[in-house]
Amino acid sequence: MAPPSAMASDLTPAAVANSIAKSSTEANNVTDQKLAELDPSKLKVTITKSPRQFLADSSKIEWGKADVSTDHWITVKWSEAAGWAAPELKPYGPIDLWPTASCLHYATECFEGMKAYRGFDGSLRIFRPAKNTARMLVSSTRISLPSFSPSALEELIKILLATDGPKWLPEPGCFLYIRPTLIGTGGALGIHRPREAMLFIVLAQFPVLYEKNMKLLASREDSIRAWPGGFGFAKVGANYGPSLIAQKEALARGYDQILWLFDKSCQVTEAGASNFFVVWKNKDTGRVELVTAPLDDKIILDGVTRRSVLELAKDRLTVSNGEIQALDVVERKYTMMDLIDAAKEDRLLEAFAAGTAFFISSVSKVHFRGEDIYPKQANGTYTGLLKGWLKAIMFGEESHEWAVVVPETGFEFDASAADKEINEMVENLRRMKDNPAFAPALQRVQAEV
Amino acid sequence: MAPPSAMASDLTPAAVANSIAKSSTEANNVTDQKLAELDPSKLKVTITKSPRQFLADSSKIEWGKADVSTDHWITVKWSEAAGWAAPELKPYGPIDLWPTASCLHYATECFEGMKAYRGFDGSLRIFRPAKNTARMLVSSTRISLPSFSPSALEELIKILLATDGPKWLPEPGCFLYIRPTLIGTGGALGIHRPREAMLFIVLAQFPVLYEKNMKLLASREDSIRAWPGGFGFAKVGANYGPSLIAQKEALARGYDQILWLFDKSCQVTEAGASNFFVVWKNKDTGRVELVTAPLDDKIILDGVTRRSVLELAKDRLTVSNGEIQALDVVERKYTMMDLIDAAKEDRLLEAFAAGTAFFISSVSKVHFRGEDIYPKQANGTYTGLLKGWLKAIMFGEESHEWAVVVPETGFEFDASAADKEINEMVENLRRMKDNPAFAPALQRVQAEV
Repeated sequence: MAPPSAMASDLTPAAVANSIAKSSTEANNVTDQKLAELDPSKLKVTITKSPRQFLADSSKIEWGKADVSTDHWITVKWSEAAGWAAPELKPYGPIDLWPTASCLHYATECFEGMKAYRGFDGSLRIFRPAKNTARMLVSSTRISLPSFSPSALEELIKILLATDGPKWLPEPGCFLYIRPTLIGTGGALGIHRPREAMLFIVLAQFPVLYEKNMKLLASREDSIRAWPGGFGFAKVGANYGPSLIAQKEALARGYDQILWLFDKSCQVTEAGASNFFVVWKNKDTGRVELVTAPLDDKIILDGVTRRSVLELAKDRLTVSNGEIQALDVVERKYTMMDLIDAAKEDRLLEAFAAGTAFFISSVSKVHFRGEDIYPKQANGTYTGLLKGWLKAIMFGEESHEWAVVVPETGFEFDASAADKEINEMVENLRRMKDNPAFAPALQRVQAEV
Repeated sequence: MAPPSAMASDLTPAAVANSIAKSSTEANNVTDQKLAELDPSKLKVTITKSPRQFLADSSKIEWGKADVSTDHWITVKWSEAAGWAAPELKPYGPIDLWPTASCLHYATECFEGMKAYRGFDGSLRIFRPAKNTARMLVSSTRISLPSFSPSALEELIKILLATDGPKWLPEPGCFLYIRPTLIGTGGALGIHRPREAMLFIVLAQFPVLYEKNMKLLASREDSIRAWPGGFGFAKVGANYGPSLIAQKEALARGYDQILWLFDKSCQVTEAGASNFFVVWKNKDTGRVELVTAPLDDKIILDGVTRRSVLELAKDRLTVSNGEIQALDVVERKYTMMDLIDAAKEDRLLEAFAAGTAFFISSVSKVHFRGEDIYPKQANGTYTGLLKGWLKAIMFGEESHEWAVVVPETGFEFDASAADKEINEMVENLRRMKDNPAFAPALQRVQAEV
């Protein structure tokens, strides 16, 4: 495979950072009255001297395990007193935290999930990034973390991709996972808004996505994911950890994910950490409908894939094109009983889960309190069309404003010289490490940074 | 102030660890079939070579800020494959985590809050520790973290207190805050049960507790702390971060904490991160009642102070002693409307919040949708009695099985020799640090641990 087309040897990451930042970030005049804004133009770049290994066999990837992250990451520290510090692009490594950091105790943390796609034309694209960065600000606000300019975050993501994209996205049709994260740091056990925070962006290789139909287990009455007045709409850590116990039960019983219900009426909400859609014939009108739960109760994540599916369906599926029957696109509350009725009356055509990480997965079965519900088509026509259209946009086969091309630079390093120096340093440190003075001395020196 | 009576120069922390551990932990025969258990007898001890500074002026303490932790902490790593590793007591320092660690993204974290009290007889006591360690196991299970023997955790807490107690609890009547924490570690972005975890215990100085009456702001309808089927009963991070936004509003409006309501019926549940009690005259019977919300919906934290208040009240306040009127102790659902009625009819006698961190705080005012509610007595008689009895037990003025004495050893270090060695090492590291090879080499060496 040829190197990506956008790679140009005269572009350094810092130069690209500067030009990207200047093009979209407002001038940031810090005064005594104003805290520093998140500002990509201040980026400090340190290129790795010990590159990490690209895992060519993606069947061996455990998503996000430390050893499948790329060469670099971006970190930006924030404090209540000073605002945002200069962003740093640097070699991927351990995070610098105190045991009393807010995020370790009070879940003051939020994140985003995005992907970078290597197009069949060689270009690297990201999909509707402004939707993710805007949602990250919503999540950050909900969990009492600092605010920032979403476009500044988008620029930092592009800078990191510009640096690591060429090496880590070598093949057309492949993708990298992008994880922007914001956590409350500093040491403090008092339960209050974090006075220090850290934004970081990591890129990670992702396991192969097998085309597999999902089986869902409906959640039990004593287990709910989110509630009105809570935080189900935000991508905060607090929505995920508590759901693992139900997920474990689903796996143990041979299902892939939980189908989350809400309320005694058994409203259908989400599937695992994805949004959930059904295609059915409306009981009263007989018309085909694409249905998903609405956002107004704020218990549903405003998924970028969810939104894109709805928009594409409205645009391309509401008028019959001869081959397929037109459908109505509906966001409304519906219950397990509605699903059961539709299945019994042969009206439940298709069902699928939609999200960034696992894209669009057809659902072949839902289990609910002793009953098994089967959509008529496991890999349905409508599901297939939506999936195909989205893929074509993501990988640049269809030109569309949702897919944003990221210019790339890659990075250069002198392997032999750098390696030698690091190996010598490793030997030195190994010798020093056994001395009991090493840990306290290192702690003191690290605190000086 | 004389050194604590239990200090004995012939007891080393390791010896105490061993004897405490042997007395209560079962022999741990690891076989191929069995994962290693949490086992205090395997403790590895490294005494600090650069002691931290005790902050004598407790008005300057920001609770849990990195610089008010004590000299040592205990860490224990866990992995799905091997179970619990050997616990380590070592100098307090930064935590070793990867940016993709589960706890930073999915709130796979839980904790406990306890205190160690320096009694007026010089002994160090902890209060009902078995209640905290048992609850920590409940929380850990709810958030899909590993299980452990609560008594083994209790022994580790005692070992840490044995080491740092003498220096950090110098004065009778003072206390230290204890924070056992369990987090999902390892690097992995897939949403699943953490395959690695870390238990740690830190001790921290605590700010002065001023006797101050609290003003509470009742939560708004669109802001709910916990829900049946959720995790309000567990001390998991996910209960705290999401509550900060409401807390911030309370502070901005001149209140101390949120009084959390549930449901359209406005059930009264908790106050801030504490349980909430009222003393009122029953509308029908005219009898005095001590009332708090019940645990059965699992939206209320089963507080150790809550439980102790209920038990003491049942034991000592249900029969008139001449000076005070007897009361009934009641756990039941009650609403804001009940509170308002009681206040209007002059039946609302006292109200208080109860928890480990801020102990028992009298409530002088509750604001609910335009109405201000005032209990008759701000520092009420019953509140004062309960507070006094609990304090007497905690500080050993009353001998009671709830207060567990911890034997102490302290720790010794050769200040001059250790300091010299550390200073030399600091100089070495400072020189090496500017070399770009330092960071990757350090990363490689630290990964070898």
